[in-house]
This record gives sequence, C-alpha cells and structure tokens, in this order.
Amino acid sequence: MNFDVVDLIRTKRDGGKLSDAEIDWVIDAYTRGAVGDEQMAALAMAILLRGMDRAEIARWTNAMIASGERMDFGALRRPTADKHSTGGVGDKITLPLAPLVAVFEVAVPQLSGRGLGHTGGTLDKLESIPGWRAALSNEEMFRQLDEVGAVICAAGSGLAPADKKLYALRDTTGTVEAIPLIASSIMSKKIAEGTSALVLDVKVGSGAFMKSLDQASELARTMVDLGTDAGVKTVALLTNMDTPLGLTAGNALEVRESVEVLAGGGPADVVELTCTLAREMLAAVGKTDVDVEAALADGRAMDVWRRMIAAQDGDPDAPLPVAKHQHTVTAERSGHLERLDAYAVGVSAWRLGAGRARKEDPVQAVAGIELHAKPGDEVRAGQPLMTLHTDTEERFERALEALEGAVGYAEAAPEVPGIVLGRID
Amino acid sequence: MNFDVVDLIRTKRDGGKLSDAEIDWVIDAYTRGAVGDEQMAALAMAILLRGMDRAEIARWTNAMIASGERMDFGALRRPTADKHSTGGVGDKITLPLAPLVAVFEVAVPQLSGRGLGHTGGTLDKLESIPGWRAALSNEEMFRQLDEVGAVICAAGSGLAPADKKLYALRDTTGTVEAIPLIASSIMSKKIAEGTSALVLDVKVGSGAFMKSLDQASELARTMVDLGTDAGVKTVALLTNMDTPLGLTAGNALEVRESVEVLAGGGPADVVELTCTLAREMLAAVGKTDVDVEAALADGRAMDVWRRMIAAQDGDPDAPLPVAKHQHTVTAERSGHLERLDAYAVGVSAWRLGAGRARKEDPVQAVAGIELHAKPGDEVRAGQPLMTLHTDTEERFERALEALEGAVGYAEAAPEVPGIVLGRID
Repeated sequence: MNFDVVDLIRTKRDGGKLSDAEIDWVIDAYTRGAVGDEQMAALAMAILLRGMDRAEIARWTNAMIASGERMDFGALRRPTADKHSTGGVGDKITLPLAPLVAVFEVAVPQLSGRGLGHTGGTLDKLESIPGWRAALSNEEMFRQLDEVGAVICAAGSGLAPADKKLYALRDTTGTVEAIPLIASSIMSKKIAEGTSALVLDVKVGSGAFMKSLDQASELARTMVDLGTDAGVKTVALLTNMDTPLGLTAGNALEVRESVEVLAGGGPADVVELTCTLAREMLAAVGKTDVDVEAALADGRAMDVWRRMIAAQDGDPDAPLPVAKHQHTVTAERSGHLERLDAYAVGVSAWRLGAGRARKEDPVQAVAGIELHAKPGDEVRAGQPLMTLHTDTEERFERALEALEGAVGYAEAAPEVPGIVLGRID
Repeated sequence: MNFDVVDLIRTKRDGGKLSDAEIDWVIDAYTRGAVGDEQMAALAMAILLRGMDRAEIARWTNAMIASGERMDFGALRRPTADKHSTGGVGDKITLPLAPLVAVFEVAVPQLSGRGLGHTGGTLDKLESIPGWRAALSNEEMFRQLDEVGAVICAAGSGLAPADKKLYALRDTTGTVEAIPLIASSIMSKKIAEGTSALVLDVKVGSGAFMKSLDQASELARTMVDLGTDAGVKTVALLTNMDTPLGLTAGNALEVRESVEVLAGGGPADVVELTCTLAREMLAAVGKTDVDVEAALADGRAMDVWRRMIAAQDGDPDAPLPVAKHQHTVTAERSGHLERLDAYAVGVSAWRLGAGRARKEDPVQAVAGIELHAKPGDEVRAGQPLMTLHTDTEERFERALEALEGAVGYAEAAPEVPGIVLGRID
C-alpha cells in the first residue's frame, strides 16, 4: 500500500488519527529513504503538538520494531529482566544493579547507550575500566548471559534502525520532547531486545528531561501500556532527579562509587535505589522472597561484577584513572544545604569533559564532580562542597560558571524528599 | 550573531515569539544551507500550528526580501501598480487587466508564475500564443514598461531566493496552509519588486486555497498590513471562487476569452472583476476619474495588449491552437443550474492536460474546459453544459470522474452571489 506523505502530515497536523496502514507505511518509507528527513521532521512536530492516542503509539512502536531484527532469549535457562532509566545526573545504578539481579538466577541483558548533553552514558562510564569493551556480537552476548548472568554492552545496529534514524533527526529539529516519540523510541528497543520483564526508572526534576511529575507520569503510563500490550511485564518507578544521585557525576568517578556499593558500602541513596529496582526486577519475574541487601553485603554481587567486567576484557583490579587537575568549591555560608541542582552539576561535569557536545566527540574518563555534601547535610562556611576533576585545566572556568546559583542554604534542616516518588504498573 | 536553531524551533513550538535577530538569522542561515531542510520543516510546522504576530510576520517578510535583489521602478515616468491573485479556476484576469490599466499612464509590472495543482498559471496561458516568451532580462522588462506600459513575465531568480527555497519545502511537508507563511511568501516578492501600489485578489471558496471567508479575511488583512508597513499602497478584494471565473478554464481557451474581453465583449463576471480591479489599481496611484469600461469598448486596451504581446515576440494575430479531441457533457435534467463546482472543474481541466503534477511537467496549450452555462442559468435536459478539450483522448475518463457531483440543479432560479464579497484596506 502506498500513501501520500503530505496527506499523512496534514491529517496529524489537523488533529486527526493515523491509521495502522499509514503508520506502517511511513516508518518503512522513512527507513528506506522514500520519505525525506524534512517530511519526517514536519510529521514529528505535528505529533509533538497534536499528540497520538494509545493505539497509534502502539502501532508506531511496532513499526519501528519491524524495521529491524528481534532478539530472543527463550533459549536461556533463566528468565530475563531489564531496566531502563530515562537519564539523569550521577545515575550509575545500572553498574551495581545488573550484577546484583544476576545473583538471583535472572539474566540481565543491559543494552546501553552513551551520554549526550548533560546526562551521562553507561558505556562511557564502563570504558574508564582499562581493557573493557562495549561492542559484543550477539553470540558473545548470549554466551555471557548464560555463563555470567549479566551483560552491559552497546546495542547492535540491527535493533530498530528506524528509531536510530528518527532519534538523530529529533535531536536536531526540536522534536525530542514528544511523549509518544520518547516512549516508542525506548520501548521499541526494549521490546525488540526480547526481555521478559522491564523496570523503567523515569526521572523527574531539574536534571531529568521530564521536569514535572505530571509529565513523567504520563510518559511512564505510556511506556507501561506499550510494554504490557507487547507481552512484557513492565513496571515504572518515578524517581527524584532534582539533585544528583550519590556523590559523583563523571565516568571513572561513578565506576568507583559503584564498586563501593558492590562492596557493601556507598551512598545511601544509590544503595536504596539499586535495591528497590532490583526487587522490582526480581518480582517482575516471580522472585519475591529475595534479600538483595545481603547479596551486596556478602560479596555475591561483587563476584558477578568481576566476572562480568572480565568477560568483556576489562580488568576489575586495575586502578581507575585519576584527573591531572582538581578544584575544590567551598560552602559560602554555614547552615543546612537545601538545594544542590542536578542540572547545574550535570552541565558542569559535561564541561569538565565527562560528556560530549557531538556524538563523535571523545569523553575524558577522569572528568567529573565529586560531592562532599548533599541536601539536608549541615555545612560550615569554607568547608569543601565539591571537587571538580579534569585533565584540561582551562575547562574549570566554564564548569564553575555552570555551578552559579546551583547551591541553596537554609537555617533549619530542610525536609529532603525520598528517592522514589511514585510507582506505575 | 549566531543562534542555535533548535532553541529557535523550541521557542516557536512552545508558543513563544521569535526576535527580529532570530528571524533575520534563520532566514539567512536557511538560504545559505547552514540550517537544514529538516530544521526549517519543523519550524514551518510549528509556525503553522502556533502562529506568528504582526511584528514577526513583517520581520520574516523583510528577511526574505533581504535574501535577494530589490527592483526599483523610480526611474520610470509613470507610477506602478501591480495585482496579485491567490489563485483560482478560470482566473485569466491578469491578461485583460494589465493592458487596461496601462491605458491610463500607469506602469503594470506583472511578475507571474506557472500553475501547480488545480489552479492555472498566467505564464502557461500566455505561452499558448505562438512565439511569446516569458523570460525577460531586467533591462527588457524596464524598457517594455517604459515603452508599452505593461509587462507580464516570469519573476527572475534573484527576487527573494529564500522564498523560492521555502516554498518548495512547504509544498512537500504539509506546511503550505500557514497564513503567516503564505502572506510573507506573496508579499516578499511584491515588495522586492518595488511596485508603488498593489491590489490583492484573495479568492474564497471551493476552487481557492482559502475555503472560508474568515480564513480569506485573515490572509487579506495580514497581507494588507505587510504592504502598508513596507510603504506600498495595498488594498485587498475578497472574491468568490465557488464557481469558475468566466466560461473557460485552460490555457489557450482562457487567452481566447481574454481577447474577447479586450474586444469589448466576454463574460459579464470577467468584465466586472477586470474593471473593478482596474479601478482599484488606478485609485491606489491617485487616478480616480477614469472610465475603464470605455477603454475596453473603444479598443485602447486591445491596442496595449497587441503591443505587449508583440514586445515579447508573440504574434497577436496568430490563430490559437485547438485541441484534437472534444467531449461534451450535457444537462441531466431541466431546471436552473444552481452549482458548478470550481474545484471539480479545476481538477478536471488539470487532468485533461491544462496543468501539471510536478513542476517539470509540460502543459497542453489546448487542454481545458469550456462552459456553456453558469449558476443561475436555466437549462433543459440534454442541452450541452460543458465541452472538454484535450490532445490526449484517454484523458477524458479521469477528467469526467473529477466532474462527478460537480453540478447541482434547482427548480426555481437560485440567488447567485456577486463576485466581490469584501474589501480590506
């Protein structure tokens, strides 16, 4: 069946509904190049401003899945569970979480991405471990899932190629923030990957793409519906991203903190979110009687971590690289820390070299920010608040600019919100 | 000054206002190729759905003018007046109008276009005259304006190149119908052309781009404001396009009808609109005491026409080409003709070969439709209603399909609306 793409754009532009056949056709034609980037950009803007209903989003997602290969973990001897975070600052949870869940005989296939903008990328973080490689063949991935139970690697180019093309287009055309397009982008890859259970960590707050709880809830609801309709047991947590997770933002710094958590220590918020997400993933595959805290405390999660890193040629014992230059920011006054803005810290770490401006840019493994206090903590004037790390000293100036106004103080101890703000299933 | 195009798209997408500097930059960057088609398509869709205020539209228009050359008719010994129609079916008014106005010592520089879709193009019509050529250099155009007083020719490529690029993009991205973009596209070319007065013929009805009087009034108001702000004396008439103008639609057929009008005859509606527009153009340059009917009746307008055609190498005495095949459609019943749909007649003439599907297609000079009755006329069953003309016999089938349901009958004589529905200045 052939359609006129201009008719299709007009239908959505005027608030109408696209038919199943129209959606199948436009995704396929765009992937083949028969529909141009300028036409898809106009359609994406119309979708952003006019919305899509549940049936349209489901069909759009399916059409993106159908544009590429599907994986099938049915041959594994274990159930599979996956986690996806919508992206935040200091969000290193995947690193301790994947090995922790694998302890309980669940396979964790984490196909991950790189950072873009102020949010970090899991692959960039792991690449600060000497020798570790992100690219695995499908065969290597299956073998590792079977033998180690957890794998964190780059998604192959065969999965939802329509999404890859559309994602890059949205990035340059001001159409990233459309909930139907965000939801279908994430879920097409997760459904094509073939996981049996999926836990979504939808971030809310200054350091997240969704600034309000309403927006985040709508996105979470849309993704849970898509997963459920596709036969994937899907749950979403709404979690706070007004302040960075843990005490580090940056690649090697976050690996170090993850290893602390796997060793039974680490910051309370990272431990809490790791354990909460682990329980959700395990419950989603029917394992409810599990003590995830014990698996962190007794070294079983660390053991899986070491095997997981080694299986991808990383040396879990090698020292992590350290930045040539450090700069410490101190408290301007005494009192309680009330606010430490996630977005500002994310942008500052990015400018120090932890992130990239363009996809092809390299990142500095060593760059980032170490926090010495978090909202709720009592501080004295002159006490270190954070330490900035980089190999490029001239980056401090713009990194410090990004931090202007990022810190707020209060006389009395402020109320600090919890990590988990809601749950949708 | 440099801007981030994604920020600009987001501003408009979220209902904000673009600054003067942002508009200047984005039009220039798009013309240079620094802003991509996919980015401009997203911006155009955001403009279509969010609108622009008067200041934004004026700046957008100015930026398109600044992308190319400006003409200046100040050296002519006469004032200049131009007319622009938003496009309809059977709208050959430019042909008798330009020489008629020139009779009164006013220079008429009609830079015209070709037909696309169901509406005809002035240049396509004149090219059915043996020898006539549309392309003139600026020098030839000035000389003809000075010596003959009227010229109808193709707009050079130097005028508002940003508009040319944007117009082609809008055509393929479902963003044609945005009033700010339609208004700035038309007015950028008319203002750059340097006319001192401009009369706009804004069509309303089934055969027009604007289907409702409200839409047409908004477009007319926007264009009159743009012209006035740029120092061009601008007036708009809103005119009926529910039924074709005159008794012909098609290239040579319309030239024949125009020559009838110039000879003092022709259909009443074509004569009425020609004279009304002529009076408006003359009044706009201060000439109010004029008898335009007399200039048609006594041959003065015909004399300018003959010199105008000859100056562009056309032979005003050469017989016009005639189609190899004719097919007559008869009245199905007796009564009064109540409706004869302009859009259906336009599409049918287009399918007969009078128009083109793509810009690069040729047109048939001979193809089109001749009407033998108009709404309000009494008809008897079996009497000829219209004759279809084409050189390609197999085109009749789809041309007749386009006419299904195009004709409506009534027992009593229906009320027929006048041509001019409103006036905006």
